[in-house]
Amino acid sequence: MRNVVLGVTMWANDTIDFWFTVGSTYTYLTVSRLNEIETASGIRFRWRPFNARAIMQEMNNVPFATKPIKLAYMWRDVERRALKYGLPLSVPAPYPLKNFDLASRVAVLGVLEGWCPNYMQVSYRRWFVEGKEAGAEPNLSESLTEIGQDPNRVIVEANAETVGRAYDENTNEARRLKIFGSPTFVVDGELFWGDDRLDDAIAWRTNGTLQPA
Amino acid sequence: MRNVVLGVTMWANDTIDFWFTVGSTYTYLTVSRLNEIETASGIRFRWRPFNARAIMQEMNNVPFATKPIKLAYMWRDVERRALKYGLPLSVPAPYPLKNFDLASRVAVLGVLEGWCPNYMQVSYRRWFVEGKEAGAEPNLSESLTEIGQDPNRVIVEANAETVGRAYDENTNEARRLKIFGSPTFVVDGELFWGDDRLDDAIAWRTNGTLQPA
Repeated sequence: MRNVVLGVTMWANDTIDFWFTVGSTYTYLTVSRLNEIETASGIRFRWRPFNARAIMQEMNNVPFATKPIKLAYMWRDVERRALKYGLPLSVPAPYPLKNFDLASRVAVLGVLEGWCPNYMQVSYRRWFVEGKEAGAEPNLSESLTEIGQDPNRVIVEANAETVGRAYDENTNEARRLKIFGSPTFVVDGELFWGDDRLDDAIAWRTNGTLQPA
Repeated sequence: MRNVVLGVTMWANDTIDFWFTVGSTYTYLTVSRLNEIETASGIRFRWRPFNARAIMQEMNNVPFATKPIKLAYMWRDVERRALKYGLPLSVPAPYPLKNFDLASRVAVLGVLEGWCPNYMQVSYRRWFVEGKEAGAEPNLSESLTEIGQDPNRVIVEANAETVGRAYDENTNEARRLKIFGSPTFVVDGELFWGDDRLDDAIAWRTNGTLQPA
């Protein structure tokens, strides 16, 4: 539950921080399910776009680009799990993204203005179902228009310094939290990395443990 | 179900190939649960020890050794999931193993002689609960004695050429199957990598899909 008290946003303990980068493939599984999960669980997700690639480069963490066998497995795994969740997709989708940073900077602006979840859902759907890269045309203009935002305005503002600073601050905070990939869920300082740890994060939020009662 | 017909071992389609390396941390979660899962599911697991490290080195796949932040996360993740499954542990356990190959060669001999699952369970328990490295003393002698095997005989045979050849053949087959880590479950050519994909492997074995009915 989000409460604004005396101008300060308070996050009650039904909140999970959802750290993500547009460009991560498994993040498709999360952004496409989160609305429904929020409704079913009563948990609120705080969307935190950051630059996972910068952190991964610092760590020399290259999961797929130089590892074709692991890359092929990743696509098959994403495909199977999307089917499990009833999500459409056509894989492999274009990868890696050319305009990685712009895609995430638009998400940062979306958080500031309140339309990030919608943008993420429609943009990832175009990327994974229609094969149109996130962060590039025509995905950007089509997705922003679909959610009622003016693409020209958004792209100018996403490239402006205010958004760049917010993006860097998020990335610095992620680094402090020892986050190293997308998606990552944070609950009271506990990190859960990967769409496949979302259930664990929810259990932790609810019970403070993964141990069955 | 394992049927021996005319001297040929036939594996009916209630079988999942369980590929593993002694030395993998997440494999603790699998070897400690597999007996119970076998009983509950009616699925048989065929234990296939191989040299995951050799394959990972060929791919320049270094998940933890040079990545302290990811290593710390891995131990916390393993710890939380062990608690979830009701498994005891004291982490971090000694890592990486000094006698990586010997630990897995003993498993290869165990498969040939029929005591591999027992060895894996008691040896991993000593490693993860008592902090005694798998593949080294006193873990080797204590674990083998506990399951009724003579440590001196087993260690000599595990170092012999027959076992070395079987170990290499398993590793070659894993490479052909495009396996790149431990544990990996294989069902009709479908790879499921990670202890956290065991449920998916079982669903695939049972229904041929992860899609809900």
